[in-house]
Amino acid sequence: MADQYAHHGEDKPPTDIPAIRWEEPPEGPVLVLLDQTRLPVEEVELVCTDASALVEAIRTLAVRGAPLLGVAGAYGVALAAARGFDVDEAATALAGARPTAVNLSVGVERARAAYRAALADSTDPQQAAAATLAAARQLHREDAEASVRMARHGLALLDELLPGGGHRVLTHCNTGALVSGGEGTAFAVALEAHRAGQLRRLWVDETRPLLQGARLTAYEAARNGMAYTLLTDNAAGSLFSAGEVDAVLVGADRIAADGSVANKVGTYPLAVLARYHHVPFIVVAPVTTLDPHTPDGASIEVEQRPGYEVTEFSAPQVPVMGAGGGVAVAPLGTQAYNPAFDLTPPELITAIVTEEGVVSPVTAEALADLYARSRQVSGG
Amino acid sequence: MADQYAHHGEDKPPTDIPAIRWEEPPEGPVLVLLDQTRLPVEEVELVCTDASALVEAIRTLAVRGAPLLGVAGAYGVALAAARGFDVDEAATALAGARPTAVNLSVGVERARAAYRAALADSTDPQQAAAATLAAARQLHREDAEASVRMARHGLALLDELLPGGGHRVLTHCNTGALVSGGEGTAFAVALEAHRAGQLRRLWVDETRPLLQGARLTAYEAARNGMAYTLLTDNAAGSLFSAGEVDAVLVGADRIAADGSVANKVGTYPLAVLARYHHVPFIVVAPVTTLDPHTPDGASIEVEQRPGYEVTEFSAPQVPVMGAGGGVAVAPLGTQAYNPAFDLTPPELITAIVTEEGVVSPVTAEALADLYARSRQVSGG
Repeated sequence: MADQYAHHGEDKPPTDIPAIRWEEPPEGPVLVLLDQTRLPVEEVELVCTDASALVEAIRTLAVRGAPLLGVAGAYGVALAAARGFDVDEAATALAGARPTAVNLSVGVERARAAYRAALADSTDPQQAAAATLAAARQLHREDAEASVRMARHGLALLDELLPGGGHRVLTHCNTGALVSGGEGTAFAVALEAHRAGQLRRLWVDETRPLLQGARLTAYEAARNGMAYTLLTDNAAGSLFSAGEVDAVLVGADRIAADGSVANKVGTYPLAVLARYHHVPFIVVAPVTTLDPHTPDGASIEVEQRPGYEVTEFSAPQVPVMGAGGGVAVAPLGTQAYNPAFDLTPPELITAIVTEEGVVSPVTAEALADLYARSRQVSGG
Repeated sequence: MADQYAHHGEDKPPTDIPAIRWEEPPEGPVLVLLDQTRLPVEEVELVCTDASALVEAIRTLAVRGAPLLGVAGAYGVALAAARGFDVDEAATALAGARPTAVNLSVGVERARAAYRAALADSTDPQQAAAATLAAARQLHREDAEASVRMARHGLALLDELLPGGGHRVLTHCNTGALVSGGEGTAFAVALEAHRAGQLRRLWVDETRPLLQGARLTAYEAARNGMAYTLLTDNAAGSLFSAGEVDAVLVGADRIAADGSVANKVGTYPLAVLARYHHVPFIVVAPVTTLDPHTPDGASIEVEQRPGYEVTEFSAPQVPVMGAGGGVAVAPLGTQAYNPAFDLTPPELITAIVTEEGVVSPVTAEALADLYARSRQVSGG
């Protein structure tokens, strides 16, 4: 069950609410999420007391972003264990809440493995719950550390590819602190450049249909004092033509063994534009996004979302009106094609930046090496 | 001055309101426009009694679309003449209402030339006004006839390029009966294919920021019983990847002497995607869109529109809230890059279809020939 917990209106000064946190009030442990569907208008938190509330929050995108979904999934399993629910049932529901992001099932499985291992050592459910929570906290910490390392590797790569400095970076969707235990993936690189005085402009794609760029990336850029400009996704072509884009930085929801990247719909057209204009196209993602069991892009299941996200407009300030809760922007009965993600083949990707290093050129062999190395490092 | 004149709510059966018409009620002549900003929610007409009301309607996009702007501009001059206003002043204001579409100034100049010629023959202002109106009506008629011929030439080209039939056509913005005295440009070709049983699917880009695809093209496709599907502009890449697009059909706001095409922002990325996927990219526009005085794309002035079109969402059903009248979708103070058009170079264009024939490949010489031929035909 989820309830609105705290409400910070527009008249309040900006706060530093984390995207996710574990709390243990007297009534029992809860997982508190910043409801990302209400940003940038208001900062509302959702309190989940069981895994099914978290599944709903994942489906409605109140919590989203590949790395954060992994952390959320692990906490969700810990929540089920701590509250005495069926852990396997909770894990299965959580892992299936969204099909494309591999991090979600990786996080869920990691917490479930910790739970099972603890139960194998002792039959005390409290000890098993504590071990599961420890695994979730560990993943959360690792994710924050991975952000720091991706940001450094990414900025070093930018400086190498674009030795003049003063980078003008185009990004798509939202990949900052709202998607991560730390400062994010692609956005973290831009933020690192900003802190180093090397970011001339962050071009922010609005990212239709759900406007994560306008609502969330602009919100994070504004809070960090970055020089940013918002644009409709289809205006990026004009920027490339005008020579105003030095590099494209995006995240990833799943990276197949061959280096194909599933990411927010609209990523692939940017990769084609970048190639046409000889601009570096850089994917930034933690190693957990690599999926060696998926051979190629065609094997990645791309989530199709409801048509009303396209045929209707909704925002926290707009009264509920249509079938999907929004205001109709197309004639009644209009059918919409609404894939959540698209696939970018490795030949269009200049580099994949991870916390373990940079892969460039992107080949199956280089990715396999990186993956093997990361397993040694984490002991996993 | 403009007033709401007629109102046809959603409960009424679909009507066949023309985009523009001249009327002569007892109070004096008026120009009646279908207010395109209110579609598809309601069919509201605007009644213009002078040129400044029409200038405002052009600026707010109540009336829009390159060919229709030419017709509207000519009627606007006729309105000034008929009501005894300063015709030169009206013509200058109308020609400057939007900078990119060349048809607007062509239509205005044609009506003004008719007015001046009539005054040279006789000093009777009524006769001059009648001659100006006759010129506007003639342009309106020619535009409707041009639609028919473009549709035929365009379908013949599709059949030649894609001999299998069952065309799956992607289009951007709105180019149908709402932009023309007839059935439009690119949309008219798709409609001709539909009537010939040759249109398998019309893919409709929503066309941010003002959603002319979702609001207007979907409205026209639905009224014509065409098989259409709406998508966000950034989802077109996925359709190309999946091999679901056989051809791209778009209109044009200005075509430079070298064949560079200014059209609704988002056109250029489609041209790059089409090239990358070896899909024909076809521009459909009347000869009045050719501008031999503009040498190339770089010489075309691209209108920059207000940022609030991107940072706010507005629709007829949404209460007025923000600075631009809409609901904020980005943090307060967000700067936006909002060009109305982009430029597609001739090397990315498979063919330009006009009422006088098809130019393919697109070269300055072929366009100059076509332009010269069209001037002989029209006696201009």
